[in-house]
Amino acid sequence: MLSQTTEYALRSMSCLAYMPDELVSTAQLAEVTLVPMNYLAKVLQLLAKAGLITGRRGVGGGYRLKRSARDISILDVINAIDPIERITTCPLHLENHSGKLCPLHGRLDAAAKTIIEQFGGISLHDMLAEDPTVRPLCNTEMLRRVDLTMGESG
Amino acid sequence: MLSQTTEYALRSMSCLAYMPDELVSTAQLAEVTLVPMNYLAKVLQLLAKAGLITGRRGVGGGYRLKRSARDISILDVINAIDPIERITTCPLHLENHSGKLCPLHGRLDAAAKTIIEQFGGISLHDMLAEDPTVRPLCNTEMLRRVDLTMGESG
Repeated sequence: MLSQTTEYALRSMSCLAYMPDELVSTAQLAEVTLVPMNYLAKVLQLLAKAGLITGRRGVGGGYRLKRSARDISILDVINAIDPIERITTCPLHLENHSGKLCPLHGRLDAAAKTIIEQFGGISLHDMLAEDPTVRPLCNTEMLRRVDLTMGESG
Repeated sequence: MLSQTTEYALRSMSCLAYMPDELVSTAQLAEVTLVPMNYLAKVLQLLAKAGLITGRRGVGGGYRLKRSARDISILDVINAIDPIERITTCPLHLENHSGKLCPLHGRLDAAAKTIIEQFGGISLHDMLAEDPTVRPLCNTEMLRRVDLTMGESG
């Protein structure tokens, strides 16, 4: 339902949220997220374009979150890749559906609404902190070496 | 959230459900669904491959539903195009997530579950009959000429 690219974006954002004060290189992110480097580079460009992360090129460069993980919802990440859009008008522009969606488009819209509510109401920070026994990405080699307690700015 | 192709598939299946006893040509379907012919041809191939419709080539040929619209759920149509899959094991194969998904994948799975429930529980027939004041596709030129009361086999 959510694309592979979206899943990769969520993994990347999770990793960056664990290390909010560091620039994390694409190679490091690839190691943690288990996403192929070339694919990951494109995902990171999309996240940067959406204003969720910021980067610095060159030696010692990398990416970090542009704002606190408390202020980034899961929906923000999803929308940076494949925006979930409500259906507000008849996609076929049928005249007699202008005031009221038909059951087909009404149900598609209801599903979009549900997903927007499910993912819009939780921040990246809260999701990562939700269950200390199984933190996202926590068992990948690199994150085993860092403190999984997120910093104050995260 | 659901792809354009899925939306086109749902429009096509709706049209065929209105006329369960007829072979409807790709050109006729294109007229009703407002989907470009070439794109539609590919959508119909996917629906045929999934066993939802059956076709006959040549003059007078076309497609019809392979089984009753009462026995085809909206989820069946969605799954013919972009299957919605539950997440049952950690996509990163992290050892300590083998018994329990992390909150990231747990939430992605919960969303998939919701959508499967929303669309798995309603048949194409019931959706089309749901609101007689706004039937899907009902104002397109071709369907204005046919009886929107679905046949017994639909």
